[in-house]
Amino acid sequence: MTSDLSLAEQASLTSGGTAWTTKAVRDVVRELRLSDGPHGLRRPQDGSLLSPSVPATCFPPAVTSGSTWDPALVRRIGAALAREASALGVDVILGPGINIKRSPLCGRNFEYFSEDPHVSGVMGAALVDGVQSLGIGACVKHFAVNNQETDRMRVSADVDERTLRELYLPAFERVVREARPYTVMAAYNRINGVYACENRWLLTQVLREEWGFDGLVMSDWGAVNDRATSLAAGLDLQMPPNGTDRQVTAAVEEGRLDREVVTTAAGRVLRLQERVDQAERFDDWDADAHHELAREAARAGAVLLKNDDGLLPLDPMARLKVAVIGEFARTPRYQGHGSSRVTPTRLDTAWDALRQAAGPELQLTFSPGGSTAVADAAEADVVLLFLGLPEESEMEGQDRADIALPRHQVDLLREVAAVCPRVAVVLANGGVVSVSNWRDDAQAILECWLGGQAGGTAVADLVFGAHSPSGKLTESIPLQLQDVPSYLHFPGQDGHTVHGEGRYVGYRHYDTLDVPVAYPFGHGLSYTTFSYEGLEVEKTGENAWTVRVTITNTGSHPGAEVVQLYVAFDEPHPTRPRHELRGFTKLPLQPGASAQAEFRLTGRDLAWYSTKRGGWRIDPGTFTVEVGASSRDIRLRAELHTPGDGIADELTGASSLGEWLGHPVGGKLLRQRLTEHPGAVKLDDVDSMVLSAVAQIPLAKFTGPILGLTPEAIAALVAAAQEES
Amino acid sequence: MTSDLSLAEQASLTSGGTAWTTKAVRDVVRELRLSDGPHGLRRPQDGSLLSPSVPATCFPPAVTSGSTWDPALVRRIGAALAREASALGVDVILGPGINIKRSPLCGRNFEYFSEDPHVSGVMGAALVDGVQSLGIGACVKHFAVNNQETDRMRVSADVDERTLRELYLPAFERVVREARPYTVMAAYNRINGVYACENRWLLTQVLREEWGFDGLVMSDWGAVNDRATSLAAGLDLQMPPNGTDRQVTAAVEEGRLDREVVTTAAGRVLRLQERVDQAERFDDWDADAHHELAREAARAGAVLLKNDDGLLPLDPMARLKVAVIGEFARTPRYQGHGSSRVTPTRLDTAWDALRQAAGPELQLTFSPGGSTAVADAAEADVVLLFLGLPEESEMEGQDRADIALPRHQVDLLREVAAVCPRVAVVLANGGVVSVSNWRDDAQAILECWLGGQAGGTAVADLVFGAHSPSGKLTESIPLQLQDVPSYLHFPGQDGHTVHGEGRYVGYRHYDTLDVPVAYPFGHGLSYTTFSYEGLEVEKTGENAWTVRVTITNTGSHPGAEVVQLYVAFDEPHPTRPRHELRGFTKLPLQPGASAQAEFRLTGRDLAWYSTKRGGWRIDPGTFTVEVGASSRDIRLRAELHTPGDGIADELTGASSLGEWLGHPVGGKLLRQRLTEHPGAVKLDDVDSMVLSAVAQIPLAKFTGPILGLTPEAIAALVAAAQEES
Repeated sequence: MTSDLSLAEQASLTSGGTAWTTKAVRDVVRELRLSDGPHGLRRPQDGSLLSPSVPATCFPPAVTSGSTWDPALVRRIGAALAREASALGVDVILGPGINIKRSPLCGRNFEYFSEDPHVSGVMGAALVDGVQSLGIGACVKHFAVNNQETDRMRVSADVDERTLRELYLPAFERVVREARPYTVMAAYNRINGVYACENRWLLTQVLREEWGFDGLVMSDWGAVNDRATSLAAGLDLQMPPNGTDRQVTAAVEEGRLDREVVTTAAGRVLRLQERVDQAERFDDWDADAHHELAREAARAGAVLLKNDDGLLPLDPMARLKVAVIGEFARTPRYQGHGSSRVTPTRLDTAWDALRQAAGPELQLTFSPGGSTAVADAAEADVVLLFLGLPEESEMEGQDRADIALPRHQVDLLREVAAVCPRVAVVLANGGVVSVSNWRDDAQAILECWLGGQAGGTAVADLVFGAHSPSGKLTESIPLQLQDVPSYLHFPGQDGHTVHGEGRYVGYRHYDTLDVPVAYPFGHGLSYTTFSYEGLEVEKTGENAWTVRVTITNTGSHPGAEVVQLYVAFDEPHPTRPRHELRGFTKLPLQPGASAQAEFRLTGRDLAWYSTKRGGWRIDPGTFTVEVGASSRDIRLRAELHTPGDGIADELTGASSLGEWLGHPVGGKLLRQRLTEHPGAVKLDDVDSMVLSAVAQIPLAKFTGPILGLTPEAIAALVAAAQEES
Repeated sequence: MTSDLSLAEQASLTSGGTAWTTKAVRDVVRELRLSDGPHGLRRPQDGSLLSPSVPATCFPPAVTSGSTWDPALVRRIGAALAREASALGVDVILGPGINIKRSPLCGRNFEYFSEDPHVSGVMGAALVDGVQSLGIGACVKHFAVNNQETDRMRVSADVDERTLRELYLPAFERVVREARPYTVMAAYNRINGVYACENRWLLTQVLREEWGFDGLVMSDWGAVNDRATSLAAGLDLQMPPNGTDRQVTAAVEEGRLDREVVTTAAGRVLRLQERVDQAERFDDWDADAHHELAREAARAGAVLLKNDDGLLPLDPMARLKVAVIGEFARTPRYQGHGSSRVTPTRLDTAWDALRQAAGPELQLTFSPGGSTAVADAAEADVVLLFLGLPEESEMEGQDRADIALPRHQVDLLREVAAVCPRVAVVLANGGVVSVSNWRDDAQAILECWLGGQAGGTAVADLVFGAHSPSGKLTESIPLQLQDVPSYLHFPGQDGHTVHGEGRYVGYRHYDTLDVPVAYPFGHGLSYTTFSYEGLEVEKTGENAWTVRVTITNTGSHPGAEVVQLYVAFDEPHPTRPRHELRGFTKLPLQPGASAQAEFRLTGRDLAWYSTKRGGWRIDPGTFTVEVGASSRDIRLRAELHTPGDGIADELTGASSLGEWLGHPVGGKLLRQRLTEHPGAVKLDDVDSMVLSAVAQIPLAKFTGPILGLTPEAIAALVAAAQEES
């Protein structure tokens, strides 16, 4: 069908028609509608860039849905989003956002899942899978290394390839390979100096050739700088349009751009249409059901950080005076600012929900703050204190300057705690806040993140124990900002953000260096307790294992446990993180009930990315499988052995003497050659200290009497080694 | 004179004649003799690579001479080295080594001065100045970023340019600009993928064009991989020869190498000869005087880390039982392993020197270790326990695996301390050792580093109080290896060492992040005490200041204080180290005496290197001048104001809206243009939160209704701004 189109028509398809649609061409291609966003539709009322949006369900943002550790739930959200998209005439939903939370300061962290690529990838794949289960397209973003808002349209993320491969790309790789998204969004920023939108290595070599992506790549809004360069790199669709299609045809006519590139890109727009046109279309959705799903997600994503003396849950039927304090209880913060901002279909408040759920004997008061709050607290048995970040501190386009709660909130907590010792803090924030300077004043802390439109009701569900909290942290909460590994590098300057911390982000840093944190990655309490027993590691192939463990609800409440599996690489001098998450599963369990968690591990789970090899590498050896309730609450351990991947490195003249001697083929050849040359130094006679220093010298440098080698002899050895390997 | 030579003759001059000489050509050029090393001549007996060397004075290595913080003393050592070079027929001394101590694990740290470029540069310049004061050539090495031994012939130091400019290059820059060395040695390693020996940016652009170097660049021994590429990059002399001069002529003949490059390189060999031929030649030296100078340096470089209750000095005339324990007292470790290893003219031991200096009532016993040592200790009033690193743990070509003292030494200390509470540990080590797990068992610690051939006598000088210790740490002593900022990056793998810690090396890291250390940079005790008073900062120019402070010896011993000046850049979110050393001076003072220390500061001392500008940048503002006795013992502070450098950044279409609005010329032009367009958004009306996000967008992206700009209008603004600026 692309062949029916002229060059100009093909070129026209490679940029949008309006701010939120692709272009139609005659009767060959229709206009496709794209819409933010990842946790709710932002379908503009008209075609302008800043148009207000029509109402849609505001599900909890990724910070909250990620904290559920429940991909099945996220998949259901995806399907609900697709149903609303269908009803609103939207073909492609611009989400999920799966960038790594490199720093808690990133202003857009509320839109992302985790500091960990496994969590981000599994959750991102679940959302894509849910959206596309109804035939609507998903758009995985922001590809790639878009981890800050500061100078985002120009900044170069300077990062070594191993870090890219092990930290910043795996979530995208998983989503592409497992969920096959229809589209990917190329990010604003540069990567090692090259704009993501012009990065052929990223958009073509890695994304398509290595991972097998077969969909369309579009730009983030306004990210394209040069049409022809972007197209050649593999960027199919510029959004929004800026009247530069003529640059594309000109580039082809002047021989600067291969015509085939334009045909291919236009073909991908057509292919996207074919895909979304297979979707069954719906006119409406069940707003109540979607609201209920939003409530379930908000509930499942809240993390009970602390609960001394079992302060929570409160018995709604008890005779109890409860002071509800804080404006957020009445005017919730439930989503962040920017392109993901949804006009909700309705909005629950915690204050309403608490009053509705409370029994007749439970007396509730409300105060927004100030001296009346302290007076309420003095009269109360328990205080529910709603704290959090103000709206302006979390938005797309701007990073935060610190991770502190506003000073006046901390002061209020101190005053309240001074008159009432039983204080439960309920937090509303999209980015992590530090707790070090106030957590001792709170007996319980319930981190509710941004709860979406039903977040208020979810708070009541948890506070009164209708449900047990089951969320866990997908990012570490540091004791202080300066403990964050990117602290000295973020957000950079002069157009560069140097990833000095490399792959040691989040728990990969804290756990490797034993840095104390306020709450570790994976942490989250429940109203009940769980035991871990019977860890088994079954070897099912040369580099394949099945891991099983039995979890029992040993407490008196129903609850759900997020069981986490890490692979540990304990090394005397670390060359990789101490351990990395390789699996998780969430098990709902009634009191006394047990269930078995099962995980599969492959060689890739043990591998590291070798830039020298240009691929993944499995070293032979012993690794530890850790199963636990957080990265610092490992309950069971077992060993696992791998023979490695059996791939020997290719030898050249630049390979060192030590690499030659240690190589299965090359070592034999070299030793044989040396015995043939009577004058050569006998390696077995060389002092071991000297030998270990000399072993580092490239073989090509030994053109002299020491080993009796000539350039020709070395060339012959290289040829022989390569031939016999 | 170069014109007298054929191409082949010129090419022949660009590699050595033997392992330690350049080539002679007819009667035009004579053979020049090069010799290791930085702290003593290693003049081989014959021309072979591994020939034993003739005796020469073994001065203390750079770790010790650097700790003197006394450039005048180091200059005298340089002159003494030159005198010995002259007598041994040596034309160029292969030193000083001034690489930054990035990690305490670097096996060659004993050959380097400091973790700080100011100390390294001042000390390096002093040595060069001393050597060349007699007309002998010095060779500054290893240029550049050669901060580890692991895989040193191939490894790429991957490091951002700002870190290069602010940390790894300034010592070289200072030596080149101030001391004008005859030669520079290009390092083995690669820098950002390009071999130092093939790095035109480094060897030509930075070294010659920016810094004005007018001497010869030679390779480290065996560092050259490609003759023609190296020559084209600015590498004049390959050492040692490997029979590849024909490659040079072939490259010229085949048009791959400019003939002029070969002529220039050969000319630099001739120029080197002209320079060294102006030296007055000597046949011998005063071995006693040089030994005495070595003793003075060893004494001045020892650092008294700890001295509880004034345990040291011991009164040699007292009636005292002193147990000397440890083989190092009898068999000193006084230099490191590798190319810098000298055959000394004589060798003092501490055991001999202590016996000689002790009065008649002071009873000395010696035990090398084991149970007799503990028995000696039990009988003694005081124990002098000699500990340190074994020889094989510190050598060129190999990095250390940890920074611990050998276990059996720590055990011995524990046993000794259990029977005698008054233990002074005397340390011998070239690289930093951790003290955390044993320092509580020692009442005093005297860090003597590697003392050179007279180190033993220096120990006695200090222990008995003939002289007061006056050395200070030129590198931080961390509490544990994992606190070292390069810990997770060193020594790298797959041929790359990623400088993730960037410019935050040593105290630049510890002080910025408030990481506790065992002993901070600049620390060192004396037998006396010093007061700091009367800090004055006089502004002498737009970006020039003179700082004065008065130091008084307030104790009862003669002593010398190393007064340190730091410039502090306290920032709420650091973009540079908390403070950096910008000056130091060592003041010898009799008890009760005062002297004024004077420092000059320039704009460069406040500047940071902007890669965007491609040069140094002084921001307007207020800085703090700190004067103190260590990086963590700041005694006096004063503020200093700078108007900045007055250079406005050039505006382009890629400059952000915020950069335009904040620019003195561009801001006016843009605001004017916007008022002319009635439909444009009024910036003053925009919500400040939105504006600060929008301000990050490049002006070139505003080709739409929001600001009413066209590509042509933006081009006109850029042209006008550039013209009027």
